[in-house]
Amino acid sequence: MIDPLVVETVIEAALREDIGFFDLTSELVIPAAAVADFTLESRQDLVVAGIDVAAAVFRRRVPDCRIELAVGDGARLGPGGRLGRVRGPARGLLTAERTALNLLQHLSGIATLTARYVALIAHTKAALVDTRKTTPGLRALEKHAAQIGGARNHRLRLDDGVLLKDNHIAVCGGIAAAVARARAGVPLLTKIEVECDTLDQVREALAAGADLLLLDNMDLASLRRAVELAGGGTKLEASGGINFDTIAGIAETGVDFVSVGRITQSAPAVDIGLDVTLS
Amino acid sequence: MIDPLVVETVIEAALREDIGFFDLTSELVIPAAAVADFTLESRQDLVVAGIDVAAAVFRRRVPDCRIELAVGDGARLGPGGRLGRVRGPARGLLTAERTALNLLQHLSGIATLTARYVALIAHTKAALVDTRKTTPGLRALEKHAAQIGGARNHRLRLDDGVLLKDNHIAVCGGIAAAVARARAGVPLLTKIEVECDTLDQVREALAAGADLLLLDNMDLASLRRAVELAGGGTKLEASGGINFDTIAGIAETGVDFVSVGRITQSAPAVDIGLDVTLS
Amino acid sequence: MIDPLVVETVIEAALREDIGFFDLTSELVIPAAAVADFTLESRQDLVVAGIDVAAAVFRRRVPDCRIELAVGDGARLGPGGRLGRVRGPARGLLTAERTALNLLQHLSGIATLTARYVALIAHTKAALVDTRKTTPGLRALEKHAAQIGGARNHRLRLDDGVLLKDNHIAVCGGIAAAVARARAGVPLLTKIEVECDTLDQVREALAAGADLLLLDNMDLASLRRAVELAGGGTKLEASGGINFDTIAGIAETGVDFVSVGRITQSAPAVDIGLDVTLS
Amino acid sequence: MIDPLVVETVIEAALREDIGFFDLTSELVIPAAAVADFTLESRQDLVVAGIDVAAAVFRRRVPDCRIELAVGDGARLGPGGRLGRVRGPARGLLTAERTALNLLQHLSGIATLTARYVALIAHTKAALVDTRKTTPGLRALEKHAAQIGGARNHRLRLDDGVLLKDNHIAVCGGIAAAVARARAGVPLLTKIEVECDTLDQVREALAAGADLLLLDNMDLASLRRAVELAGGGTKLEASGGINFDTIAGIAETGVDFVSVGRITQSAPAVDIGLDVTLS
Amino acid sequence: MIDPLVVETVIEAALREDIGFFDLTSELVIPAAAVADFTLESRQDLVVAGIDVAAAVFRRRVPDCRIELAVGDGARLGPGGRLGRVRGPARGLLTAERTALNLLQHLSGIATLTARYVALIAHTKAALVDTRKTTPGLRALEKHAAQIGGARNHRLRLDDGVLLKDNHIAVCGGIAAAVARARAGVPLLTKIEVECDTLDQVREALAAGADLLLLDNMDLASLRRAVELAGGGTKLEASGGINFDTIAGIAETGVDFVSVGRITQSAPAVDIGLDVTLS
Amino acid sequence: MIDPLVVETVIEAALREDIGFFDLTSELVIPAAAVADFTLESRQDLVVAGIDVAAAVFRRRVPDCRIELAVGDGARLGPGGRLGRVRGPARGLLTAERTALNLLQHLSGIATLTARYVALIAHTKAALVDTRKTTPGLRALEKHAAQIGGARNHRLRLDDGVLLKDNHIAVCGGIAAAVARARAGVPLLTKIEVECDTLDQVREALAAGADLLLLDNMDLASLRRAVELAGGGTKLEASGGINFDTIAGIAETGVDFVSVGRITQSAPAVDIGLDVTLS
Repeated sequence: MIDPLVVETVIEAALREDIGFFDLTSELVIPAAAVADFTLESRQDLVVAGIDVAAAVFRRRVPDCRIELAVGDGARLGPGGRLGRVRGPARGLLTAERTALNLLQHLSGIATLTARYVALIAHTKAALVDTRKTTPGLRALEKHAAQIGGARNHRLRLDDGVLLKDNHIAVCGGIAAAVARARAGVPLLTKIEVECDTLDQVREALAAGADLLLLDNMDLASLRRAVELAGGGTKLEASGGINFDTIAGIAETGVDFVSVGRITQSAPAVDIGLDVTLS
Repeated sequence: MIDPLVVETVIEAALREDIGFFDLTSELVIPAAAVADFTLESRQDLVVAGIDVAAAVFRRRVPDCRIELAVGDGARLGPGGRLGRVRGPARGLLTAERTALNLLQHLSGIATLTARYVALIAHTKAALVDTRKTTPGLRALEKHAAQIGGARNHRLRLDDGVLLKDNHIAVCGGIAAAVARARAGVPLLTKIEVECDTLDQVREALAAGADLLLLDNMDLASLRRAVELAGGGTKLEASGGINFDTIAGIAETGVDFVSVGRITQSAPAVDIGLDVTLS
Repeated sequence: MIDPLVVETVIEAALREDIGFFDLTSELVIPAAAVADFTLESRQDLVVAGIDVAAAVFRRRVPDCRIELAVGDGARLGPGGRLGRVRGPARGLLTAERTALNLLQHLSGIATLTARYVALIAHTKAALVDTRKTTPGLRALEKHAAQIGGARNHRLRLDDGVLLKDNHIAVCGGIAAAVARARAGVPLLTKIEVECDTLDQVREALAAGADLLLLDNMDLASLRRAVELAGGGTKLEASGGINFDTIAGIAETGVDFVSVGRITQSAPAVDIGLDVTLS
Repeated sequence: MIDPLVVETVIEAALREDIGFFDLTSELVIPAAAVADFTLESRQDLVVAGIDVAAAVFRRRVPDCRIELAVGDGARLGPGGRLGRVRGPARGLLTAERTALNLLQHLSGIATLTARYVALIAHTKAALVDTRKTTPGLRALEKHAAQIGGARNHRLRLDDGVLLKDNHIAVCGGIAAAVARARAGVPLLTKIEVECDTLDQVREALAAGADLLLLDNMDLASLRRAVELAGGGTKLEASGGINFDTIAGIAETGVDFVSVGRITQSAPAVDIGLDVTLS
Repeated sequence: MIDPLVVETVIEAALREDIGFFDLTSELVIPAAAVADFTLESRQDLVVAGIDVAAAVFRRRVPDCRIELAVGDGARLGPGGRLGRVRGPARGLLTAERTALNLLQHLSGIATLTARYVALIAHTKAALVDTRKTTPGLRALEKHAAQIGGARNHRLRLDDGVLLKDNHIAVCGGIAAAVARARAGVPLLTKIEVECDTLDQVREALAAGADLLLLDNMDLASLRRAVELAGGGTKLEASGGINFDTIAGIAETGVDFVSVGRITQSAPAVDIGLDVTLS
Repeated sequence: MIDPLVVETVIEAALREDIGFFDLTSELVIPAAAVADFTLESRQDLVVAGIDVAAAVFRRRVPDCRIELAVGDGARLGPGGRLGRVRGPARGLLTAERTALNLLQHLSGIATLTARYVALIAHTKAALVDTRKTTPGLRALEKHAAQIGGARNHRLRLDDGVLLKDNHIAVCGGIAAAVARARAGVPLLTKIEVECDTLDQVREALAAGADLLLLDNMDLASLRRAVELAGGGTKLEASGGINFDTIAGIAETGVDFVSVGRITQSAPAVDIGLDVTLS
């Protein structure tokens, strides 16, 4: 899920940032009539995300270029896997190449890393969840890539979810008071989540009628006990210090969600090559 | 090096993206008069980059907040190292927190990864160089972070450098013709670099008077031979498939520059914590 | 609840729209040194909303003007009630006057109309709710004004709530399927509401685990029956054809929410006068 | 009269405001291949305004949708009157629906209210006139709607007309001085209007050569006397406290224009329904 | 007359255009603590225009710089005349220098050229008038500069004046019809001007009640005859092929206005020097 | 060389600036169905620049207009020379006319003036060079026009070249130190130029390894001596007080480049007529 208006904004800014006054090299040496034929190919195992964004970059630059996509977002490719082909006026396509690749490699990187975490908890009922730890300006695209990799989206931004942390609770004088204050003013279709560090807080949050509990940095025993306390009613999200080694154990405690900031914050770009033929 | 106007643009977009209509949680439960005291602390070994950007995020949101920075960009910290303190109206600071951290952790991540590469070639005369493989919208900030980590900047964008690749050369009918065509129209303070895959191309590019040679994916022997051919006159940049294992060997061939895309494209965010006290 | 960044955007556009190249009249006849003293006064019964927005208009234009607000948003005034006083350079304040008043009168109009509806259902447990029927560009401000008038906010926009209407349900092949499909992909803190036209649909939606039911254009008997069916668990929202005459009866059926589009879409501006003294 | 560039700006902002990151409900439950067929129908007596704006909303979102408009701006419809039909990809059209309706209902509301005022003075030579009391951001559209309803436009903004009010006159030391000062600097195709509260001021303003007189809150006898004094030369505009009950009497005094702020500021949205069929 | 919001927009765009990612030279070699002392000095005879705009450029860049203006817009200086002094952090001021000078030299160039034309017709009752032949993006500033040089402003843009040219008249079937059609829909404070190439057209336009006549490329005898026909009632504007040699003769015919496109379109920049002392 | 994204931005702003709410005259008197046929014709000797920009203005306004360009940028025309023809809906084309002409006449004016300077040094090996003395907002277009007239581009902006002036040198403690400091941090494809006022400085700059020398206001003998000192290695640029009378002599000294600010800063608009036929 990602709206074309959001994509337009990102592409517009990205192209302007990279081009400046002109693409000096192309203008100086590429004949106006030259035609380019691009092939996009995977050079590693990866999950594709942002292929439509990359296509939109080329189309924004060269409206009448011909694009044939071999795959869609979510496709899993190995080295040598074809992503698609783009043909049209060489100057424009060469100008757009780096921007298209930067977005495609970054977003596919997120999907690929996300899929690795998802695979580690596939045997449990827990779902992987993203966070607000995203690259400024790319939130919507990165959350889309996380979804493509198999994660669920947490809050999109500060106005579509209430997350009561220790400080919020402290100034309200307790979880019950904090939840009540939030409940009174929250938009009708928005849920309230309460961060809990201890089992006592879990009990309080459940009693207060929180819609979701964020279990922060709890050990496995506590997570299991929290699951018992919730009894399958209120949903539970585990977070904090989750990595390749720990995620399976955490998911096996029975929590509903496991959130990992690094899927959007620290995903290495994947290697996607672009072969060019000019004529 | 990073201009305040660029920082303003990034911060403005980042805050709007994260806030939407309002910071629901803070508005609902934080009293307007509450005051926050934030401490920024490193939780790992890292090189700080973007500390002024983070400070600018808080100041954009809470113009009269008090900020004391303990370090500047370039500082090296270990776990527990203090970065600074921010105090002021709680609502505004809590709203800005995630945006400030996202930028600081991302940019410091780049500086930290860059510094690791730089350390591996410190015994050679080669300098590390960044690329245009940056996150769309954050080019200027990421190139700054790379500089802070010890890298030199390559082209900022498509209009401030000529880089003649194989396709450009092919359509011009050879390196000499391509360089001549570029030389005739290039702005006065802009250099021309030629990508070379073979030693024959190196000879041609040197003869054509290129300002810089990009040696792409050459083996060590070829790199050494290219260094001899250049004879200390024209500068040489090695690129392609460079990683922690290969970079030292490549730098030891005598090339002037080694460029690594992943310092901006694949740097994991570093762990910087923010402790909050409300009153 | 309304973020300063949103207010900035609205004010910036509003001033530019009204000023164009310059405030011709003020520039031609008001001496640069003239000082204005504005008094804002209510000329009817009203609920104040947007007083801080109006103040921000004057401050955007004349940063060092002196503003004394006599009331805050939510205050109820009758004819002759003082809202505040603004003093400073006459040219700038005269230029800003119309924009400040247009916003203040419009937002207070919404709060005032909302409060009239709220009063009619104050004896019930039902809360008034706003809709997405807002003026393009002013959504956040108008939802704030509705809140000030005593309403709860429904969805802020299309990305922070799921509302399954008849067409959505039809293409999914029924309520159960539609809810299931939505549940699988919805962000964690976002609820799912199902529009129901019949009691059978109410039963289906309850069984499907919808978070909220929108009872559209149901008669009073059906509303009462829906309340029984929900049994105090799932929340119910009544909507459609609600006006001054019908709202009390609808609220008395026991529904939790009553939504009225016209509080934002058709609220007449209230009469707030601005007396000017120049010196 | 309304320029496509202005319409573009309003639509762009409106869609972004309503969509955010994505249209969650449509993305989750509407198949990408689903097709929608919308019918726009009047549910009350109204004057259509903004039908091209509404069409532009759908076209901005779904460039290749098919739109058949049954009427143009200015058409008068009763309940059940057809406005037009829109067909195309369901997701995009559903996303645009609320924004299109919000604009169409608001602008038609203005045209409809304006037409009611115009009808009340149709037997006189007076024309109805709008004001700068418009919704911030929608000035151009609302002035267009007022024209469609039969009104003439007063100033578009602060730079295309001089309106000398009591304060302007006071700081200049009288009407003659104020008009002279304005006359010396006003753009060549811009007129000067003088606000008059008394017949003495009317005489002064006529003598000063004002192009237009604004008779503010004068009683009927004074208005009639002012008409005699002007003698058919200088145009007269009556304003202040004009409503359905008083407007005919005021217009019958012989003034040329009657201005009413509430046609743009307080027009209730009209009821226009949109029936959707998905397939 | 020039609004601060317009100035802000121009300065913002100008600085971003000139700076890009950073002011490379200043960042590399100017110590952060260095202080600059700028003196602005005229190097020719000129009329100052845009001095506040130039000051605003420095202030936008270095909010706490100290600016002492020795003159205001409209001042006439010879070689060596002081315009002002600016002191503050060197990096920021050096970065802003070129942008400030570009605007100041351009606008003062317009005022200086305008003043030369004005001087040539000072013995007549005719006023010099500008046109819409301005530099895209700088209309408001250039019209201000023309005013400072002694000209009156014609239309600001296409929405604040009606100018009926030969083609408009032809499609309407004559001047009378064109004026009548325009009169029926023109905003209340906007005038109607008719372009006339012949004396017959002058007679028609006067009879049609045009507010102003544009006498295009008429010979002196015709201009004099047109003045007689107008009889001091309707205002007359002469335009077309007016230069230093012809303007006095044209103005002496008795026309009210003489319009010259080249004052905004072809004014050479004046020479204003900026001496810098760093410490 | 000029990027379509840059052209879009300029045109968008220019049209909005000129149109405001609407093109009042066209809307009032031109029938919606009227068709216009425009012919663009030179009325003097000129070098065409910006013809594609002008075409883009018409196309932005009337996407389906038919444009036939008779010449491209760089064409030399005399009085009566045809530039092209534009046909399509009259309202839109009339609205765009002034903006298209303003840009075309301005840019062709720059190319024409540039070509005159270039012709004066055609017998030498020196190339004409532009500067950063451009109109704010039009830098890229004006640098393109200068190129079309035969000039080379100097720096595009502050981030793509290092130019060390006297003040920079002073704060660094000499040319050698300043060049070294710059060399250490400059992006890889960017050159360093040193401003020299004396021959001693020329020697220092050559020794310091500057890439280019700016010889500021030197007499002919000194220029000749500097050429000898550089010996054909380092490039030399002469600047300062260069006009039609002095440029040939300066170029004949053997310098490589001669820079002239007034080609962009003081070029009079050329006379290009637009004949309109409506039907």
